Amino acid sequence: MLFGLAPALTLEAKPVTVDDLLAGAPAADWRTPNADDTLYLELPHGRVVIELATAVVPRHAANIKALARAHYFDGLAIIRVQDNYVVQWDDESHRRPLPPSVKPSVEFTADAKAAPRFQPLPDRDLYAAQVGFLDGFPAARDPRTHSVWLAHCYGMVGAGRDDPAESTGAEMYAVIGNAPRQLDLNVALVGRVLKGMELLSALPRGSGEMGFYVSAEAPMPINSMRVAADVPERERTPIEVLRTDSATFRAVLDQRRERHEPWYKHNPGVIELCNVPLPARTPGGH
Amino acid sequence: MLFGLAPALTLEAKPVTVDDLLAGAPAADWRTPNADDTLYLELPHGRVVIELATAVVPRHAANIKALARAHYFDGLAIIRVQDNYVVQWDDESHRRPLPPSVKPSVEFTADAKAAPRFQPLPDRDLYAAQVGFLDGFPAARDPRTHSVWLAHCYGMVGAGRDDPAESTGAEMYAVIGNAPRQLDLNVALVGRVLKGMELLSALPRGSGEMGFYVSAEAPMPINSMRVAADVPERERTPIEVLRTDSATFRAVLDQRRERHEPWYKHNPGVIELCNVPLPARTPGGH
Repeated sequence: MLFGLAPALTLEAKPVTVDDLLAGAPAADWRTPNADDTLYLELPHGRVVIELATAVVPRHAANIKALARAHYFDGLAIIRVQDNYVVQWDDESHRRPLPPSVKPSVEFTADAKAAPRFQPLPDRDLYAAQVGFLDGFPAARDPRTHSVWLAHCYGMVGAGRDDPAESTGAEMYAVIGNAPRQLDLNVALVGRVLKGMELLSALPRGSGEMGFYVSAEAPMPINSMRVAADVPERERTPIEVLRTDSATFRAVLDQRRERHEPWYKHNPGVIELCNVPLPARTPGGH
Repeated sequence: MLFGLAPALTLEAKPVTVDDLLAGAPAADWRTPNADDTLYLELPHGRVVIELATAVVPRHAANIKALARAHYFDGLAIIRVQDNYVVQWDDESHRRPLPPSVKPSVEFTADAKAAPRFQPLPDRDLYAAQVGFLDGFPAARDPRTHSVWLAHCYGMVGAGRDDPAESTGAEMYAVIGNAPRQLDLNVALVGRVLKGMELLSALPRGSGEMGFYVSAEAPMPINSMRVAADVPERERTPIEVLRTDSATFRAVLDQRRERHEPWYKHNPGVIELCNVPLPARTPGGH
């Protein structure tokens, strides 16, 4: 910045894109999600791959895996699609018994052991004193209590509940609209859609109150929900996720905060937690 | 708050909901959008009603009305649906001539005459020094220059462009994902979907780069786009929009910022511009 030449060259050079950064990322900057923490929600039109935040919400993750292993979700349906809000699936009839190990709990904030892994964003946030990433999930942190929690960004998956605050994980939802951050600290988020988000977000909206399907509408059936580790290896979806504690991810953040592409006439100079791309890829190709 | 009884009563009273507030709103708190500033995007599966922000972007609004009146959009198609981002429609072939009155311009910020009508939100924002509402549209304001501009919230409609910064309005898009506020001050927003948003947001995502449909996919055809004033009155969609300068709207904001419903265990105490509901209704019913 001190000598005339460098900025001029910078301005004329082709700006680095997120694709460039990902293409140049060393293999160590990618991770393969643990198959025991990965869910396959099998719909008639395809597979939704969900990564559970097991380290953040261990009780809900254990419940959901127990439910999947008891075939609890198989043959249920997506019962609610509310535009700009959530897609929901559960046993609306409440007739299916829960496995004995599945107990309700409140897991709005993570175990304090998770806090040291929190990677803060330098950017501000409206809802929390500090935001960043925790093992690849968008998260927030209270610097006074060191408490951490997951944030309601697009594609996040949560455990629905009534009142009181407890939930089991038997009622699940995915965020399909503008980040409903007012739900943070009010519901246990349990994970994130890594692949197949469009199989949920493009579903027909329910015409009932809060987007519930009414009887004339055909809810999308759920063929099954499985833990990836229980699926034969050749039937699994190969996937890699960019590590949020990697140098490549930090470069992606910088690229998205300061927009140097000529198309941008105004540089935002800030990035909102839920506008941060969390890249995932098929190994050996995109 | 000073005497013991009132807070206790408040806690036990059923909290007021947005529906309660709207049901109790005086007729004067609702407005009927000007038919000359309303567009009907007619798709095979229904009508999308768009209100143009004519006072904010007069040149783009005039262009789009001239284009609609020249039947420019009729028989085009939705050519791009990018998950968590935008739906786009335009003449991909660039073969259709533009009416002679349609000239490109840059309208990223509004005419200074619009600034006094800006209703500020007390809440902070990450992207702008001040945010609020301008004639019913989410907007931002620079308190130093008094410049105002529209904000990229879910359901907002914009005029796409290449580089340079000018646009005509012949390329249109609607936001279907988490508010891409980094686009603020980089594109001319021209209006907002008032009704029929789900006809756009639930469209199948395009599998090409940036969500463009590839040749094997069938883009959704556009039957026509009309100015409502040009449609026979009996074929118009009756609609009313809550005034953003009304007492009812201020009460809706308060209700959504401080969540007193028993379901909420943590009160967000803040509301993000793009999480503010902008109620619209069919007169004489919802």
